[in-house]
Amino acid sequence: MKKIEPKLPKGMRDLEPGDMIIRNRVLTLIKATFEKYGYEPLETPALEYWEILTGKYGQEAERLVYHLTDHGGRHLGLRYDLTVPLARYIASHQHLLKPFKRYQIQPVWRAEKPQKGRYREFYQCDVDAVGSASMIVDAELIALTVEIFDAIGFKNFETRVNNRKILQAMVQAAGIESGRSADVCQSLDKFEKIGWDQVESELLQKGYTRPQISVLGELRLFSGDNFTILSDVEKILGGIPVGDEGIQELREILECLAAMDVEQKHIKLRPTMTRGLDYYTGPIFETFLTDRTFSSLGGGGRYDGLVGIFSRETIPASGTSFGLDRIVAALHEIGQEQTGSTTTEILVVLFSTELKSEAISLVSRCRKAGFRSELYYEPVKLRKQFSYANQKGIPLVLLIGDVEAEEQAVQLKDMKNGVQETVPLQNLEERLSEKLKRGKERS
Amino acid sequence: MKKIEPKLPKGMRDLEPGDMIIRNRVLTLIKATFEKYGYEPLETPALEYWEILTGKYGQEAERLVYHLTDHGGRHLGLRYDLTVPLARYIASHQHLLKPFKRYQIQPVWRAEKPQKGRYREFYQCDVDAVGSASMIVDAELIALTVEIFDAIGFKNFETRVNNRKILQAMVQAAGIESGRSADVCQSLDKFEKIGWDQVESELLQKGYTRPQISVLGELRLFSGDNFTILSDVEKILGGIPVGDEGIQELREILECLAAMDVEQKHIKLRPTMTRGLDYYTGPIFETFLTDRTFSSLGGGGRYDGLVGIFSRETIPASGTSFGLDRIVAALHEIGQEQTGSTTTEILVVLFSTELKSEAISLVSRCRKAGFRSELYYEPVKLRKQFSYANQKGIPLVLLIGDVEAEEQAVQLKDMKNGVQETVPLQNLEERLSEKLKRGKERS
Repeated sequence: MKKIEPKLPKGMRDLEPGDMIIRNRVLTLIKATFEKYGYEPLETPALEYWEILTGKYGQEAERLVYHLTDHGGRHLGLRYDLTVPLARYIASHQHLLKPFKRYQIQPVWRAEKPQKGRYREFYQCDVDAVGSASMIVDAELIALTVEIFDAIGFKNFETRVNNRKILQAMVQAAGIESGRSADVCQSLDKFEKIGWDQVESELLQKGYTRPQISVLGELRLFSGDNFTILSDVEKILGGIPVGDEGIQELREILECLAAMDVEQKHIKLRPTMTRGLDYYTGPIFETFLTDRTFSSLGGGGRYDGLVGIFSRETIPASGTSFGLDRIVAALHEIGQEQTGSTTTEILVVLFSTELKSEAISLVSRCRKAGFRSELYYEPVKLRKQFSYANQKGIPLVLLIGDVEAEEQAVQLKDMKNGVQETVPLQNLEERLSEKLKRGKERS
Repeated sequence: MKKIEPKLPKGMRDLEPGDMIIRNRVLTLIKATFEKYGYEPLETPALEYWEILTGKYGQEAERLVYHLTDHGGRHLGLRYDLTVPLARYIASHQHLLKPFKRYQIQPVWRAEKPQKGRYREFYQCDVDAVGSASMIVDAELIALTVEIFDAIGFKNFETRVNNRKILQAMVQAAGIESGRSADVCQSLDKFEKIGWDQVESELLQKGYTRPQISVLGELRLFSGDNFTILSDVEKILGGIPVGDEGIQELREILECLAAMDVEQKHIKLRPTMTRGLDYYTGPIFETFLTDRTFSSLGGGGRYDGLVGIFSRETIPASGTSFGLDRIVAALHEIGQEQTGSTTTEILVVLFSTELKSEAISLVSRCRKAGFRSELYYEPVKLRKQFSYANQKGIPLVLLIGDVEAEEQAVQLKDMKNGVQETVPLQNLEERLSEKLKRGKERS
């Protein structure tokens, strides 16, 4: 048998304990917040029928869907996102109680050209409400976004808010035919990254006139608080029906956010934000760090056309998505990530074969008190056992040797500062709680 | 565009909120216990190179691996289990600190014939320690198994324990050549299901002699506590080197379990248990309900040959696996599952458009206190809003109408008994905590 190289396919990765610990911490916060807002978990299978997945994402994207044939010759694909499976789920449950509020956190697969930080398998964390046209939905999605980024530990971030209807009205106001709206938005979308001068020359190149471009550019100049910006927008776009709609929707969202007591500094109205070329039809929102040049950490919006695609009806829907990989990268970048490389808090040393029972009792006692604890399995040299704790980043080591067994005590070593102390067994849990800075009961 | 049927591929399923809530509860307990024993999370990609996955599971199993070709023409497969990916991970990390203790909870795919309760995509929950030959590892795996099933809420279960070396020694004692050991074990494995008489006639049919079969059968007769059974086994198999080894290993495990204070009634030595035809080489264990005829809820054992398959060395390893689908099915069957169909605890009614801000403030306040709360988004008839709570199984409904807004109070309705009461806003959190039977702070 020839030796097989233990390699991973291109664009794939293992998520090692150090990665998983951060990811799990973030996901736990995200899930808890979703549920606090009344969203419930859903999972769909990785494999869907080929015809479900295709014809939804555009030709270029569709090339990235992994295809396979099942053993009965049916064509299947690996899911490309979580939105089309949601639409399929909605269509196959005609009598679903509405609004249907679900969150879904699962990997998706895309056969993209591998490049730094981009993988062919990655998690999407989506939260969507299906069946309500109320702007409270959109306001809640923004509120939970702010709550999540705050809980994760980001200080300087803002969730930018706009409405596709504002963009439509702006195109109208500039006297550009609505059919070219996507073309205009594609250029506008780059404003935050490349600045207005470059957007302007791109639009000129595309054949738009200076007066047209000047109207489009007006919206970027507004500043002040969100309600002020909205009034200024109204001065330009008021009277254009789709503009009035968009303004009214945004005003409602801002009012809801105020009633929810969401910190104003995290919400920023940006009338030029377009959020790509996606399927959005109303309010859109996207979160960025304000002190780094990271791209979006997540975003979403209202998309009243997509969820009904299989049932051929228009079902109002709004949702948002969190970019787990980008959030984790941002945490590393800003040095906010305090989590170590291990979940284990205590290593119990195996002093000798004779004292095996004592060591086992000790580690069991630590676990019963809720501490994540490991026992070294072989009675090898103590130096090797301490080095294991050190290399793994386990903060505390407990040792029960002959003297300690005699005296009903243990040696406790703090691996961070090297300080060692004798702790009477009767004070064990109390001392460990102090050292690990937390209440005794935690399981 | 022709209408596409929103169907799922055969053998695939959606995990709806009601399913997910139970699964998440079980998985949270499993993960917390794994970490309490010093195991750390790992995830590997769904897609592996075809040559990694094949040649490991036997021809019949291999037919069940989903195959696909990536966009560069490389052959890939969807992972069939979590053990081969672990072996691949170990081989590609030569300098990994040992023991490497990881848990991995991810779906696997098998193109099996769909049948009731068997799916083509299902989760495996594996926990394995790689790099230690110590019997403490195996004892800890048994201890954490008992702890998990106890925490989930099972009362009547036992983890059966044996050692492949006992089976080998028994085959020797019966005077059967060791090459036929698998053949013998295949029949013995059915003992618990079909009884000894049938096993006996199967063995006779296979050509084994009555004296041989009588030796094999002796082990099933032993009873009493585990140490007694072990002594009785020793009377028969003692002196056969592999038997002595197996007995010594089991004795060590039983001693460790005693030092860990694991409840004895959950541990049952079963010298006839073979645990299929898998790759095990030492201790094996498997958990069953004792008051139902459910099949195994999970099991594992020591497999010193498999993990080193890609590095061509023998690396000691032991691990166990929890059958999430079977655990959930068992919980339904014994009626232990108390979880409702929703995670949401409170529905706040939207009384009128005029009182929207008040309703929003109220739901925000509930969320800040850590209650999972939903706001009804449209000011429709109250009957419809209450019916929504009722259909979803949300236990409490809060209403703030004109009178309540005036009086700084809310109406609280308990949906289980229909009782409605007026609660002053200042007592809100306290009363909700009482109704939901828990401490106020929980986020």
